[in-house]
Amino acid sequence: MKLAELTWQDAGEVSKDVVVLVPTGSLEQHGPHLPLFTDSYLATAAAEAVEARIPDKVLLVPCVWLGCSGHHLSFSGSLSASFPGYEDTLVQIVESLLPHGFMKFFFLNGHGGNGDSNSVVCRRLKADNPDCVFGNRGYFKYIPDSVLKSTMTGPLKEIRHACEAEASMMLHLHPSLVRKDKLRDDGLVIDPEINGLTLHFDEVTEEGSFGYATQATAAKGKALFEAAVEGAVKELTALAEGFVLKGI
Amino acid sequence: MKLAELTWQDAGEVSKDVVVLVPTGSLEQHGPHLPLFTDSYLATAAAEAVEARIPDKVLLVPCVWLGCSGHHLSFSGSLSASFPGYEDTLVQIVESLLPHGFMKFFFLNGHGGNGDSNSVVCRRLKADNPDCVFGNRGYFKYIPDSVLKSTMTGPLKEIRHACEAEASMMLHLHPSLVRKDKLRDDGLVIDPEINGLTLHFDEVTEEGSFGYATQATAAKGKALFEAAVEGAVKELTALAEGFVLKGI
Amino acid sequence: MKLAELTWQDAGEVSKDVVVLVPTGSLEQHGPHLPLFTDSYLATAAAEAVEARIPDKVLLVPCVWLGCSGHHLSFSGSLSASFPGYEDTLVQIVESLLPHGFMKFFFLNGHGGNGDSNSVVCRRLKADNPDCVFGNRGYFKYIPDSVLKSTMTGPLKEIRHACEAEASMMLHLHPSLVRKDKLRDDGLVIDPEINGLTLHFDEVTEEGSFGYATQATAAKGKALFEAAVEGAVKELTALAEGFVLKGI
Amino acid sequence: MKLAELTWQDAGEVSKDVVVLVPTGSLEQHGPHLPLFTDSYLATAAAEAVEARIPDKVLLVPCVWLGCSGHHLSFSGSLSASFPGYEDTLVQIVESLLPHGFMKFFFLNGHGGNGDSNSVVCRRLKADNPDCVFGNRGYFKYIPDSVLKSTMTGPLKEIRHACEAEASMMLHLHPSLVRKDKLRDDGLVIDPEINGLTLHFDEVTEEGSFGYATQATAAKGKALFEAAVEGAVKELTALAEGFVLKGI
Amino acid sequence: MKLAELTWQDAGEVSKDVVVLVPTGSLEQHGPHLPLFTDSYLATAAAEAVEARIPDKVLLVPCVWLGCSGHHLSFSGSLSASFPGYEDTLVQIVESLLPHGFMKFFFLNGHGGNGDSNSVVCRRLKADNPDCVFGNRGYFKYIPDSVLKSTMTGPLKEIRHACEAEASMMLHLHPSLVRKDKLRDDGLVIDPEINGLTLHFDEVTEEGSFGYATQATAAKGKALFEAAVEGAVKELTALAEGFVLKGI
Amino acid sequence: MKLAELTWQDAGEVSKDVVVLVPTGSLEQHGPHLPLFTDSYLATAAAEAVEARIPDKVLLVPCVWLGCSGHHLSFSGSLSASFPGYEDTLVQIVESLLPHGFMKFFFLNGHGGNGDSNSVVCRRLKADNPDCVFGNRGYFKYIPDSVLKSTMTGPLKEIRHACEAEASMMLHLHPSLVRKDKLRDDGLVIDPEINGLTLHFDEVTEEGSFGYATQATAAKGKALFEAAVEGAVKELTALAEGFVLKGI
Repeated sequence: MKLAELTWQDAGEVSKDVVVLVPTGSLEQHGPHLPLFTDSYLATAAAEAVEARIPDKVLLVPCVWLGCSGHHLSFSGSLSASFPGYEDTLVQIVESLLPHGFMKFFFLNGHGGNGDSNSVVCRRLKADNPDCVFGNRGYFKYIPDSVLKSTMTGPLKEIRHACEAEASMMLHLHPSLVRKDKLRDDGLVIDPEINGLTLHFDEVTEEGSFGYATQATAAKGKALFEAAVEGAVKELTALAEGFVLKGI
Repeated sequence: MKLAELTWQDAGEVSKDVVVLVPTGSLEQHGPHLPLFTDSYLATAAAEAVEARIPDKVLLVPCVWLGCSGHHLSFSGSLSASFPGYEDTLVQIVESLLPHGFMKFFFLNGHGGNGDSNSVVCRRLKADNPDCVFGNRGYFKYIPDSVLKSTMTGPLKEIRHACEAEASMMLHLHPSLVRKDKLRDDGLVIDPEINGLTLHFDEVTEEGSFGYATQATAAKGKALFEAAVEGAVKELTALAEGFVLKGI
Repeated sequence: MKLAELTWQDAGEVSKDVVVLVPTGSLEQHGPHLPLFTDSYLATAAAEAVEARIPDKVLLVPCVWLGCSGHHLSFSGSLSASFPGYEDTLVQIVESLLPHGFMKFFFLNGHGGNGDSNSVVCRRLKADNPDCVFGNRGYFKYIPDSVLKSTMTGPLKEIRHACEAEASMMLHLHPSLVRKDKLRDDGLVIDPEINGLTLHFDEVTEEGSFGYATQATAAKGKALFEAAVEGAVKELTALAEGFVLKGI
Repeated sequence: MKLAELTWQDAGEVSKDVVVLVPTGSLEQHGPHLPLFTDSYLATAAAEAVEARIPDKVLLVPCVWLGCSGHHLSFSGSLSASFPGYEDTLVQIVESLLPHGFMKFFFLNGHGGNGDSNSVVCRRLKADNPDCVFGNRGYFKYIPDSVLKSTMTGPLKEIRHACEAEASMMLHLHPSLVRKDKLRDDGLVIDPEINGLTLHFDEVTEEGSFGYATQATAAKGKALFEAAVEGAVKELTALAEGFVLKGI
Repeated sequence: MKLAELTWQDAGEVSKDVVVLVPTGSLEQHGPHLPLFTDSYLATAAAEAVEARIPDKVLLVPCVWLGCSGHHLSFSGSLSASFPGYEDTLVQIVESLLPHGFMKFFFLNGHGGNGDSNSVVCRRLKADNPDCVFGNRGYFKYIPDSVLKSTMTGPLKEIRHACEAEASMMLHLHPSLVRKDKLRDDGLVIDPEINGLTLHFDEVTEEGSFGYATQATAAKGKALFEAAVEGAVKELTALAEGFVLKGI
Repeated sequence: MKLAELTWQDAGEVSKDVVVLVPTGSLEQHGPHLPLFTDSYLATAAAEAVEARIPDKVLLVPCVWLGCSGHHLSFSGSLSASFPGYEDTLVQIVESLLPHGFMKFFFLNGHGGNGDSNSVVCRRLKADNPDCVFGNRGYFKYIPDSVLKSTMTGPLKEIRHACEAEASMMLHLHPSLVRKDKLRDDGLVIDPEINGLTLHFDEVTEEGSFGYATQATAAKGKALFEAAVEGAVKELTALAEGFVLKGI
């Protein structure tokens, strides 16, 4: 079900076993070839596809589209929440629904930069509501490594930023918004290797994207997107239906 | 222009005379007959209609759909931001764009409950950026009183909540989301009159709406909506083109 | 009753039906002719006059004199609270009294710039204490339009800032603090009209006041002030005595 | 000068060598014999007396009457700020005046419970404005020990709470507000001695006061009050006129 | 160099190329066999070992031992910072040193639960200081997978909580604090698999540890610890000496 | 008992009559002769000495070493918490233990600059937990005046900063960390006397210390330290064993 379209009476009748599903995106630069709303388009599309397949198991909330994008702000048009503000938005959504009996909440993320805060939010909510279930994961994490490897043709077999994978999924879902004439390979890495540094995108790219976007095709995008949705559907179904904990 | 669809390079080339236009809505109960997202649907529609008419004068930001709806939270499905969280969201949107030269910002509001905070946000931003221009107004405030009076047939000639006017505009814009069989007149008032009290919607209504929704028609909705858009286009054009201050 | 003058044992014996009445003012520029404390003088005077007439129906708290005056800070001597600090002051006053059984709270405002926050405070308090009653209104809002129109002689028949009405009431209540030789008409408006903009007083005035202060007389001030007190007494009496909600 | 009574033009002409003087009080229980506003009455009286003697050396701000009184909240009628809210009020007063050139700020305290925060506020302000001067002290601290000893007749030769000294000063300044028939000795101490514990007034008193209030007289009150004012005048004059730092 | 042991004059003479190294730990339950301070003991030991090997390349700050441990609080003795408080501690440490010219900061983490906040802190600091370098990583992440696999004998070849690896390192570094008679294998997993859930340690363990602690030996601990230190020394040396960014 | 070394099962068995003892220090400049960690070394040493003498009466928490040191930040290497961050750290430590039944908490302070906040923290905690006991005191306050006077040979018979007393205790406890060749007398005072000013250490000293450090000896340090520990042991024992309140 889509919460936006329900009346309050409808909402009151929804089974409390459903997973409240909150897509989280961003509005931030995605290189010269993808629109600023890319992460929100993709997270929304993934969440809507999940809802379309298991409508009685999830309650879909509209996309929280303002993400944590401080590392992109030197590129015009990029918007960023503050960390506390972003976290508060997610917390308030959940705390509005808790008194009405909803117990299971999942943030389906479309922007890597939201990951730290999505995790913190779940931990804060869990501390206050230990009997409820909170989870978060990037929609793209549901794509099995095997599918990444078999589908992607560029040297990087993973999701980065405005990369082969994101550009492909945008070609699949919103082809008119992709500047096909501006698709571009980009990305800089530290030499020698030093793990764990926090770098801005004007340091690690030339024009804002990271990966091999020139390899993007709609067909690849369809393969990746479907794999993501399939994985999410499987795990969110399990979450709606219940799970047990057993010894390692 | 729609910010969501631009690339960062496009955004960098936008004229700095444009008005950055941010619609603000809510996801809250709208009686038994309108969907929870009503305010966001209407604010978004108004803002998009403005953008469609003067695309080179406004830069449209996606709708901030999580509003200040604490007075509706006892109705299932309603979501509310905290006041500080809501304000922070608006402030961060503006502060992301200020360093890139944008100077004029306007919040086009679709939910009365956001009004206090939209005003506070403009005042906070103005204090820090006295040379920039900040404004906010309900899209429905652009409807002239004369149009309200000539269009509405119920006893209340004003916009309230899930009322004749809102239901009419939803019938005009999203007819499939209106529960026509559940349209209902509702509303309670204090006796004797005491102005200024803060009351929740479970105190001042029986089922969540306030006004004469049974009077709603799509034709009325079209008249009201068009009048709102026309008024907003006129004033936002003036804002983009510049104004002077002259003595009373 | 005046809370300041009670002992804690007196306070413990006050009927819990009383309205706790909190005047809110400011210390901010009021043109070349009125003192910085004008709003606090007037809000205090109004609240004290109400208490004098219905002493057993209200519990008068001292004036919260530091208001939200950021739009006046470029004029020397003006002081402003932050929005969160101002709100916290009001909230703490109420939360100190709630555990002792007080149930009805009303902020009688003397400074337009406090209005957004007075409303937000009532909404925050109501969310946490849904069975209590919270309200706020400008004392000047109790003056009927008919009285404004019959009393004021300048072109603006409403309360603005250090205007005909405020200067008149100061001449009535604190004549020695009015610089009669400096009374001045002032005020600038946007051309063409654009509603909803947030402007500072150094933008919309030449020397800080807005209105036709040269029209001010003590007699007018008495008429306006008495009308305000009469209206407030009537509604606060109703609030102390209880009200019902009935269908529109 | 009294800031409240100035216009903004007056304020602009004040010498920037003056000490901005902010009295801080409370509204909290003072036993069965003194009114809730006692600390604010006394701090205001002391600050006004200082201003009356050296009007060109101080700029008197109205009393910040809502203090940090959490330890009295179990007594009806007591009000308390939160610590951050109280601190913010003081900080905002100062930060409103700093841009207009004022450089010297002093909080004259009338309530022991404000002491921690008055100190923290000065430290926060000093960190941000190292070239300005910030200070705070209880008005009662200016009374020399010798005067306390020669004036007070009860066993405790110091200022406590609603005690011989405070009751005496209230008899001197506001005799009609003292419940002479309810003057009472009160106070409990830890046995065995343990320094540094934080205790509430419902733990360390029977009815709210601490000290030998039955010893209070207006004559003692006059002697103590005058000594306090004399000491404050001397040091604040030095502060207005400037000081140097020299080696120990 | 160890900051704790320097004077301010020493600190002033330290090369500004050094990496300011801040170990972050916790005080939280580590099963029936390891002490509450385990993470802080290990992070401190790792950081001190790094400092001992490259003393002129790092400036060692004392361990921030109060970590983000909300998921352990149901076990007695566990302490947890709030997320904002923990982050503020790290930010303030850095912001105290920035004005003195230090440019490179690295948080060496010993507690997985600090990871989200360590990342957020680096991102917040980077946003305000884009020309400085901020990084964070678990000390245990420097252990190559090959070493984990060749050293650990239990089924889990990774670092979990009070597990084979942590117990081994504690046997190597602080053998007297390990309750050898209470070493225990523990841990529960979700069935069917659902990624991304936030679970507390009283849900995913029987007595607080996760892993095969009965496999622990001091020799394994030495091997793992030395590998971690070696890896950290290598990367932090590179950070002190400088790096470049080159195209992928 | 030392909390750091306990397991959670040990902690669960600790008597709830114990005083949870939290030393608070700083890392800040201590003149040219003492290391930055001086306050933390001394507070830790005092707390550990107390624990060694009455191990079954106190539960020792590791030192909160990041203090409120804003007044020292102009000296390189000094670190300071923010006031809210410092307070939050202390509050969270206590609030982690309260649910497990601990009732008595004491902050043993080693840095004067923490005093305001240690007091505020106790007041905040007491307001929320009126049945628990909270206290705070400088370890040095337990030294009787008579001991200060009989032991110290310089003109100042009190503890200041990096002074005769602190340098002596460091010579007693950590002689290798004292720069004996740099011991120095320092300190500036206001002339004429003005009490209550907030001054930074770069204003009131020449090189950071205040007092007669050239008079320091290890023997004096031993005498002062032992007196402090003896006093603290006596009062904390009383706190663990219980106390009553009796009339003055």
